Amino acid sequence: MNDTMTPEERTAGEPTAKVDGPITLINSFKVAADRDDAFHALWTETSMYLRQQPGFVSLRLHRAVNPDATYRWVNVATWETGADYRAGHLTDEFRRLVTQEAWGEFPSNPSIYEVVTAVGKG
Amino acid sequence: MNDTMTPEERTAGEPTAKVDGPITLINSFKVAADRDDAFHALWTETSMYLRQQPGFVSLRLHRAVNPDATYRWVNVATWETGADYRAGHLTDEFRRLVTQEAWGEFPSNPSIYEVVTAVGKG
Repeated sequence: MNDTMTPEERTAGEPTAKVDGPITLINSFKVAADRDDAFHALWTETSMYLRQQPGFVSLRLHRAVNPDATYRWVNVATWETGADYRAGHLTDEFRRLVTQEAWGEFPSNPSIYEVVTAVGKG
Repeated sequence: MNDTMTPEERTAGEPTAKVDGPITLINSFKVAADRDDAFHALWTETSMYLRQQPGFVSLRLHRAVNPDATYRWVNVATWETGADYRAGHLTDEFRRLVTQEAWGEFPSNPSIYEVVTAVGKG
C-alpha cells in the first residue's frame, strides 16, 4: 500500500466559514495492525514539530481497541485559531516531514472542526 | 439516502484487548449540509439519554468548518470503562432511540479508542 498524498492533502482544507476562537483538527489514519510502532514513531516526529508552533494548544492521539475500526489511529488536536493551524502546516519543515516516503503507507483524512456541544471536563 | 443500521452497528464493537481505565468513543456522522439542524436535534435526544448512564464522563460534539469533510459531524466522548460504554448502549431505551427512522439519513461510524499520547490540557 502506498499513496501519493501531497502536503496539502495531509493538511485540512481552508474553512469557508469564519471561525473565531479555537479549532479542533481531527485527523484519522489507516494503519495496518502490525505497523503500529512504525506509524507511532513517524507521527511523533511530525507532531513534535507542530507542538512547537504558535497557537498549538493540545492533542490526544488515540488508538482503536477494536481491530475492525476503519481508522485505527485518530489524532484530535486543538489550536488557538484556524490561522495558527494553517501557518504551522505551511512551513518548509512541515513539507519536509510529511513528504517522507514512509508516510505513503499511512493514508490520512484531516478535517477541521468547531465544538458545538461540550458536556463534562474533556 | 437511507440505510438500515442496526442498534449494534450504531454501537462500537467489542474490544479484543482488555482496556483498563477510560475509553474514548469517536463516532463520525455523514450529514448533508442543509440537514445540520435535524441531525443536531436527533443526536441531542439520544445523547441526553446516554449522558445519564453510569460511567459517562464527557463529550465534545464537533461540526466541520470545511464543507468537503467526509464526516461533517464527529462526537468524541469519554467513558470510565468500556464496560460502562457497552452497558449504556445495550438498554431497551437506547435501542428505541437509535431505531427511529430519522436516523437512517445519518450513517455513523463508531469506534472505541484508548489515548496513547496526550499533550496539553484537552
